[in-house]
Amino acid sequence: MFVDLRDRSGLVQIVGDQKLGELRTEDVIALEGTVKARPAKLVNSKLPTGEVEVEAGKVTILSRAADLPFEVTSDGLQIKEDLRLKYRYLDLRRPRLAANLKKRHQMVSFIRRWLDERGFWEVETPILTKATPEGARDFLVPSRLQPGQFYALPQSPQQYKQLLMVAGVEKYFQIARCFRDEDPRADRAYGEFTQLDLELSFTDQAEILSLTEQLFTSLVEQVLGKKILQKPFPKFTYQEAVKQFGDDKFDLRDQKQRQDPDLLAFAWVVDFPLFEKTETRQLRPSHHPFTAPKDEDLPLLDQDPVKVRSWQHDLVCNGHEIAGGSLRITDPQVQHKIFEILGHTQQEIQQKFGHLLEAFRYGVPPHGGIAFGIDRALAVFLGEPSLREVMAFPLNASGQTAVMDAPSPADAAQLKELAINVRK
Amino acid sequence: MFVDLRDRSGLVQIVGDQKLGELRTEDVIALEGTVKARPAKLVNSKLPTGEVEVEAGKVTILSRAADLPFEVTSDGLQIKEDLRLKYRYLDLRRPRLAANLKKRHQMVSFIRRWLDERGFWEVETPILTKATPEGARDFLVPSRLQPGQFYALPQSPQQYKQLLMVAGVEKYFQIARCFRDEDPRADRAYGEFTQLDLELSFTDQAEILSLTEQLFTSLVEQVLGKKILQKPFPKFTYQEAVKQFGDDKFDLRDQKQRQDPDLLAFAWVVDFPLFEKTETRQLRPSHHPFTAPKDEDLPLLDQDPVKVRSWQHDLVCNGHEIAGGSLRITDPQVQHKIFEILGHTQQEIQQKFGHLLEAFRYGVPPHGGIAFGIDRALAVFLGEPSLREVMAFPLNASGQTAVMDAPSPADAAQLKELAINVRK
Repeated sequence: MFVDLRDRSGLVQIVGDQKLGELRTEDVIALEGTVKARPAKLVNSKLPTGEVEVEAGKVTILSRAADLPFEVTSDGLQIKEDLRLKYRYLDLRRPRLAANLKKRHQMVSFIRRWLDERGFWEVETPILTKATPEGARDFLVPSRLQPGQFYALPQSPQQYKQLLMVAGVEKYFQIARCFRDEDPRADRAYGEFTQLDLELSFTDQAEILSLTEQLFTSLVEQVLGKKILQKPFPKFTYQEAVKQFGDDKFDLRDQKQRQDPDLLAFAWVVDFPLFEKTETRQLRPSHHPFTAPKDEDLPLLDQDPVKVRSWQHDLVCNGHEIAGGSLRITDPQVQHKIFEILGHTQQEIQQKFGHLLEAFRYGVPPHGGIAFGIDRALAVFLGEPSLREVMAFPLNASGQTAVMDAPSPADAAQLKELAINVRK
Repeated sequence: MFVDLRDRSGLVQIVGDQKLGELRTEDVIALEGTVKARPAKLVNSKLPTGEVEVEAGKVTILSRAADLPFEVTSDGLQIKEDLRLKYRYLDLRRPRLAANLKKRHQMVSFIRRWLDERGFWEVETPILTKATPEGARDFLVPSRLQPGQFYALPQSPQQYKQLLMVAGVEKYFQIARCFRDEDPRADRAYGEFTQLDLELSFTDQAEILSLTEQLFTSLVEQVLGKKILQKPFPKFTYQEAVKQFGDDKFDLRDQKQRQDPDLLAFAWVVDFPLFEKTETRQLRPSHHPFTAPKDEDLPLLDQDPVKVRSWQHDLVCNGHEIAGGSLRITDPQVQHKIFEILGHTQQEIQQKFGHLLEAFRYGVPPHGGIAFGIDRALAVFLGEPSLREVMAFPLNASGQTAVMDAPSPADAAQLKELAINVRK
């Protein structure tokens, strides 16, 4: 009898007597046995363990498996995604997905070590917090202790990381969970995502770009085994990018190079306009309202704000925007003016951003940073068709956690304690 | 003129002309200068930089500081906590708190490396999820896409980590954010806390205890510079602990040893009863409903359930419970029986735990683990009076984020979109 035994590291072939014949697919067993070289004609060069087999001794069945709802040996991409997500704990047995979990762990682990070695401290910022103006819809959490009031889940740790610069942390990072109640797209999972967020004081754009470039280069070459088309990463102004590619997200690979799944083409885009115009011809920030305008363009803030260029920097890879950041405003007067240009009333400015404007009164170092979505970057690097392929338990497009059947109704006592009603 | 210049690493004395006289306390400056040995009689042996001074060259004032609401040079414990939390970004300039942030980073960084080196993968589990039966009150998040339904924030990643064992991850950990809407106590912060959560397959209690003991020993000796009273950690059964100390949380240090802030007394407690009785004489789990009963006590489940002992293990340190875990039930029939003994109806079992019982049908390895609160453990190790002293931006006892003034009212349009009303 021959049986394939699988663990996290792969497959090995077991040889034994009829006891093995009692085993069903996906049973969990403990095995004692002897590793032996396979006879030359049975060597399987496609399998990392193809030169050996294990002669079974004692076999103990630890857990019996019923018939699975789908096979777990293929890449799974042909199976309906809702079914895969409902049985995600089986779907993750698939070698492709197990490898993705492992690569994600290796990526995050590498980033943390790399930043630790360069003096960055990881600091955790709150999940139960206040609405922040990142432009997307917030998730709200009703407060029991303060009836009628709500926490918001953070869309990013933006303001907290700036407060950490005021606190003198100097070099901060966080692998942070972020929450946006936005309709899902191909390159965005619904609900929550994970972001590497980093910020440093007494810096300039050149340092941030150089640091990020070193981090990504080491990460994709050493950890993920990929090749980079151009080093150092080419740098385009926003105007050059739009003129040359018609967009600020572009792909530097030619048709032939796009056939190589291991080739990554990075490029920087800088000198973005500080503002863009909405359909109703109002101004909104190209990045976010904390991005610093370029010094030489400050006089334009009053005269012609759409012409003001900013210290924003974006990194594109194979046609996707995978990282973005900026130098931040630290002058409370400039920050206040930006809020006014964006159409906030004095009362709104005080209510939403008063804490930041006040913080800047007590001494603030010049600072800036960058952030990138771990899920999105890894999906781009691995060429996966969706971010969900690199997440353990993603929500589906309707916002449901298929495995656990959430969201679900709350009971009346809970709602009463939280001082809310469901609308009919 | 003499000025103390501070950065994240400490203080250094600057010597210069009247330009330094323009500086106000807490101004942020850039300085060029020459490091020189101090004259012998001016050496300050109490300061790490006390043998040198910097002769100031060019001084640039980067940001002016207004008068601070409190000083940031003392340990701050005499200042009203609400004021400290409102200006947390200034409070964190305090050397004690900056050192706590750094130690927390070093602790978490060390734990991650240590587990990575032993083959553990960090896997992120969802924050927007379903209510779990950890016994505390859940935070709820109304769903916009599924009106009238709610996500719950996880009290722990318990069920997800068990599903990862079903998925074949074998060795999992996560520094995970957990949420409990419970009234705060001295050893518990309100709202959210951070937990090291680890789980492994094909294990036994001895392996989990040994692994945890090695981790804690390396952590407190190498990273935090503490001494351990007894190695290996002494182990007590629950019965022995209650008999000898009157409690399952106890302090092995004598009166004199308690004066030494660097001495830590660890001990294991095992053989807990599986159930405890509530005031209304119902049974509830001593740990949680997934903890495995000891095999030899299985027959007692029907006859005398309060006599059943479990595979729970707790770690105490200096009188505090700082870690807890167990081997888990993997037999769906035993798990189902435990839910029945706890008084759940068949419908409730299906609704709340159906996914876990079904998962166990497809092959599940024996598994177990342990978890501990990062905030609590670090506060105990450092002898801090409150968990909030080792958190960057804790909620206060009324559940308010003092810095950002959350929770706060939501606007009518948001509530309408979420299909909820605030009760009058």
